[in-house]
Amino acid sequence: MKPTVYLVLFFFVQAVLGNNTCLADGDDDKMKLRDLWATGSKETISFLGGIYEHSEWVAETLVKQQSGDADEITTVSGLAAAMKAIVDNATEKQKLDLLKAHPDLAQKVEKLSELTADSQEEQSKAGLQSMTAEELAKFTELNTQYKKKFQIPFILAVRHSTKFTVLSALEGRLSNPKEAEIVTALQQVHKIAWMRILAKLESDEPSGFLTCHVLDTANGCPAAKMRISLTRLSPPETAGLVANFMTNDDGRLEGGPALKGSNFTVGTYEWVFYTGDYFASKGTQVAGTPFLDEVPLRFGIDNPDDHYHVPLLVSPWSYSTYRGS
Amino acid sequence: MKPTVYLVLFFFVQAVLGNNTCLADGDDDKMKLRDLWATGSKETISFLGGIYEHSEWVAETLVKQQSGDADEITTVSGLAAAMKAIVDNATEKQKLDLLKAHPDLAQKVEKLSELTADSQEEQSKAGLQSMTAEELAKFTELNTQYKKKFQIPFILAVRHSTKFTVLSALEGRLSNPKEAEIVTALQQVHKIAWMRILAKLESDEPSGFLTCHVLDTANGCPAAKMRISLTRLSPPETAGLVANFMTNDDGRLEGGPALKGSNFTVGTYEWVFYTGDYFASKGTQVAGTPFLDEVPLRFGIDNPDDHYHVPLLVSPWSYSTYRGS
Amino acid sequence: MKPTVYLVLFFFVQAVLGNNTCLADGDDDKMKLRDLWATGSKETISFLGGIYEHSEWVAETLVKQQSGDADEITTVSGLAAAMKAIVDNATEKQKLDLLKAHPDLAQKVEKLSELTADSQEEQSKAGLQSMTAEELAKFTELNTQYKKKFQIPFILAVRHSTKFTVLSALEGRLSNPKEAEIVTALQQVHKIAWMRILAKLESDEPSGFLTCHVLDTANGCPAAKMRISLTRLSPPETAGLVANFMTNDDGRLEGGPALKGSNFTVGTYEWVFYTGDYFASKGTQVAGTPFLDEVPLRFGIDNPDDHYHVPLLVSPWSYSTYRGS
Amino acid sequence: MKPTVYLVLFFFVQAVLGNNTCLADGDDDKMKLRDLWATGSKETISFLGGIYEHSEWVAETLVKQQSGDADEITTVSGLAAAMKAIVDNATEKQKLDLLKAHPDLAQKVEKLSELTADSQEEQSKAGLQSMTAEELAKFTELNTQYKKKFQIPFILAVRHSTKFTVLSALEGRLSNPKEAEIVTALQQVHKIAWMRILAKLESDEPSGFLTCHVLDTANGCPAAKMRISLTRLSPPETAGLVANFMTNDDGRLEGGPALKGSNFTVGTYEWVFYTGDYFASKGTQVAGTPFLDEVPLRFGIDNPDDHYHVPLLVSPWSYSTYRGS
Repeated sequence: MKPTVYLVLFFFVQAVLGNNTCLADGDDDKMKLRDLWATGSKETISFLGGIYEHSEWVAETLVKQQSGDADEITTVSGLAAAMKAIVDNATEKQKLDLLKAHPDLAQKVEKLSELTADSQEEQSKAGLQSMTAEELAKFTELNTQYKKKFQIPFILAVRHSTKFTVLSALEGRLSNPKEAEIVTALQQVHKIAWMRILAKLESDEPSGFLTCHVLDTANGCPAAKMRISLTRLSPPETAGLVANFMTNDDGRLEGGPALKGSNFTVGTYEWVFYTGDYFASKGTQVAGTPFLDEVPLRFGIDNPDDHYHVPLLVSPWSYSTYRGS
Repeated sequence: MKPTVYLVLFFFVQAVLGNNTCLADGDDDKMKLRDLWATGSKETISFLGGIYEHSEWVAETLVKQQSGDADEITTVSGLAAAMKAIVDNATEKQKLDLLKAHPDLAQKVEKLSELTADSQEEQSKAGLQSMTAEELAKFTELNTQYKKKFQIPFILAVRHSTKFTVLSALEGRLSNPKEAEIVTALQQVHKIAWMRILAKLESDEPSGFLTCHVLDTANGCPAAKMRISLTRLSPPETAGLVANFMTNDDGRLEGGPALKGSNFTVGTYEWVFYTGDYFASKGTQVAGTPFLDEVPLRFGIDNPDDHYHVPLLVSPWSYSTYRGS
Repeated sequence: MKPTVYLVLFFFVQAVLGNNTCLADGDDDKMKLRDLWATGSKETISFLGGIYEHSEWVAETLVKQQSGDADEITTVSGLAAAMKAIVDNATEKQKLDLLKAHPDLAQKVEKLSELTADSQEEQSKAGLQSMTAEELAKFTELNTQYKKKFQIPFILAVRHSTKFTVLSALEGRLSNPKEAEIVTALQQVHKIAWMRILAKLESDEPSGFLTCHVLDTANGCPAAKMRISLTRLSPPETAGLVANFMTNDDGRLEGGPALKGSNFTVGTYEWVFYTGDYFASKGTQVAGTPFLDEVPLRFGIDNPDDHYHVPLLVSPWSYSTYRGS
Repeated sequence: MKPTVYLVLFFFVQAVLGNNTCLADGDDDKMKLRDLWATGSKETISFLGGIYEHSEWVAETLVKQQSGDADEITTVSGLAAAMKAIVDNATEKQKLDLLKAHPDLAQKVEKLSELTADSQEEQSKAGLQSMTAEELAKFTELNTQYKKKFQIPFILAVRHSTKFTVLSALEGRLSNPKEAEIVTALQQVHKIAWMRILAKLESDEPSGFLTCHVLDTANGCPAAKMRISLTRLSPPETAGLVANFMTNDDGRLEGGPALKGSNFTVGTYEWVFYTGDYFASKGTQVAGTPFLDEVPLRFGIDNPDDHYHVPLLVSPWSYSTYRGS
């Protein structure tokens, strides 16, 4: 849990997102897509113009498509896919220009040093401004090499990033061949676009939901009557226990999805599975201090339109999980 | 993390362990086995006499074996195995008597209600005394059924137990055939013996250690340069960050075991793997809010003589772990 | 695939099953449970009398229960559970007598040496009669120790057993404490009963079916358009390709269960997943000779009333499977 | 096992590899790297000139590097990495020319139809020439679209490919954005280069080896005394049983690596783990027809210089494997 580092790249991301953008996932003022389409073409283009950095042509092409035969887009993931497809089909030059339109991370880092002491303390854990002199020197050196090798600014779209993420990503991606790094950078641009869409818009009928399933791989059966808790770790304003659950005879949650509708929000979550109690009921509790007891499983939800199935396969000595469907 | 419920079954376990027993794992006053053997036979029997509840004959048989040809036992796990073997080879009647020598959990629960308000508050989270009237009625009913069906007291040897553990174990084990429950109850007795041994003795040369390994299953290679932290969650008196690590090119910890020697103590631990940073360096970070970012992995160390290998196999969308060797 | 060793323990199992019992899983002459109940009590007891070795009292008790208030049993798994419960609730002496009523494996081994040369050749791969002199001596020694320690004959209920299984099981179980081995031996007796039930009876409306699901853990999505084949490996008389499948967009089989109704028969099966082709379509095929290409997954179906969900979680570098539900 | 389809793409691959190239992995006539360097620069360039299709400049650059300060390359993986780095650092135009220098798969398919009946029969299982009229029409259509969209020939470097692989890869990659497909196509080119290197050269001191480890995740311990067999499935000329093994107390193979030195050859292999026998020895064999009995695990070895660790984590109801190190 890192509530204190949640805002780490806030200044960078805010700069990238644009000043008129609110980041809060829980924002109740997001516009429905049908309401967006109901505004005029000009207004729509203006509203979506900043999704891709300084590249209003993406929004313009989209509006042209929408005013044609295309079915009206009703979900944020549908909107993101449509705008991504426009970029994917653009010319090589247009894509390079899009990449080059992004601000240089180095300038943000400089600005961070001008923050008030209070702000600095507030986000002092692992943010860019907490870089030691040595780390800053390394960052500057890597960033310079990056721009020289690839001729584009370094783009990283992870909101919860720390200085470790930035340094790790910079160093790792520096070894890419140029054509591979262009692909990676464009993926980052699409992620920034996705975050900007999520910050401003919501699906007409959000359909995402979260389910769980627990299988006992030692006994080859669903894990019945296992207690599970679900906690929202971020965003901070809605953090806290979501609910406690008990699995049914099929190892699933009684009463359907753990999250759906307006509760199914983008953010970071944690299941805790009380596997020690469960295996004690099987008589297979295996030690005074069991190898596995409370099993935490921390995961992110990034798409409000998707089904997230996050199961646990567990024996007293092993477990695994995966993004299911 | 449940520091507040750590003492939950303390009163029960203390009653079971005996009054002259100190539970603290970090206790520096534990006796070395060679020092135990150096005391006389009478003293040794007296020292070990309470390991198996009211069954000094186990210690007596052990001392007789030790004074014969047998190699001197030098490890706590060796001692536990030798005493367990004596019980395993005892007569059916001796084993039943051993089971029946254990106190009835119901009496402990009654005593808990007489605790001072302060003590009750201190451990109010999920302990037996926090049972609601409904839970207490269920407990009493199940415990009565248990004694009637199996003719032995209900024995549960998990130190960190909560009321949920107790109720879950009681209900689950009640459906066992009698001969299977006898086996389960004896396993619990051996675990209590093990906890008592750990509370009083230590190996001459503790040899246990903890290692880690991280494999990137998306790319089929060791996960190099991944940050990992290790925190001790319990016992509370030594809880806290143990160290931060960085994996080497083979995905292992630089500098050898994460814990060894006097740092390798029985208790609950948690790795946190910074997989988000790692995959960002690969350019495969897959979302604004990644599905996996910080991966916590909570596990117990129960045997100070063992090698615990606790690895992580991870892709951006799945992970698994297991007790390795 | 071991078609040739399929009959390995036939003589032993046949002796244990009784001479009037047909082993073939595909036998069309099995009786429906409703037809069994329609016969008189005497006939039912006679029919079920040999399910538990020389212990007609189990069948008698069952018939008494069935003629009372109990709902009529309609499935073979329901019948097995009811008969098992009768044994579970029997006295200690009845259970020991049941165990002792089983033939000694050693006598079977002797008889095997008297087989005609033809028969011996037929099952010469790894059967008991193929034991070398050294293996036979070891077997005899272990079997003698077993009977001396536990006072019951060694019982093993695995139909496809080889001499390796028998030697491995004998040696492993010899180290059990007596009360634990009694539990294990009773479990084997229940399995023999289960095999005998399956050989003679079938559920009124068999409801079992087989499903599959393939998840791509490298990309965090269902593996769409993956080819899969399903082959029945045993029993030999119905062995052969069952069907070829292609996963749909959710990574599941088009057209529902791979097996259901009369096709869902007890036996050994093998999925082959063409993961190499699938990952080639993702552009993530990772080598001239890929680490994973055709992934075989061999599993047994033992309960004609159950849902078997046998999925694959796969990246180009790892996979896992489990008995799901 | 698909020995009959082993040569499926032979004609395509041979065309790509060049006529003077022998594909057999077991070829004893491969040149050591030190012997290559001992020939003159001209000879070396001539020898390596065809590794990258019609792009002798890669070999020329390499020879120039080698005659400078660079340490002499002693392994085939070192040679492949050095040549790949040269391509990675080449200009965008050089890379595109390299891609365009590859033959069009469609021409190969045409030629296949002119093969003699004998040859066609020999490789009739799933080869390109076995395409139905419908499949051929689909292939032609997709291939035409591919060339139109990406302006390069479709390149696929999988030796064991079937028509399914080709159609699957063509269709999947067609949906890539252009810059992503260029990256994928270059990866295929590097794989072809790797196969060509393997066909002509060998490391001075091949250092690869194969190890195994079996962990019992139901009991949390190494799986001791489990039988394992290893079979080489391809190349066909050296196919057959490699050896039978028995795990030691740590769950590893007695006597070290399963393959090393001249036995560690590129190809397809299969472990079979006799997990049924193992769990029978634990008394946890769970059914007449166990869910898991003989567990086959099929994998490819592609790099003669690498350590392949291919373990099994297994309970009676689940298993997993991965490429370890």
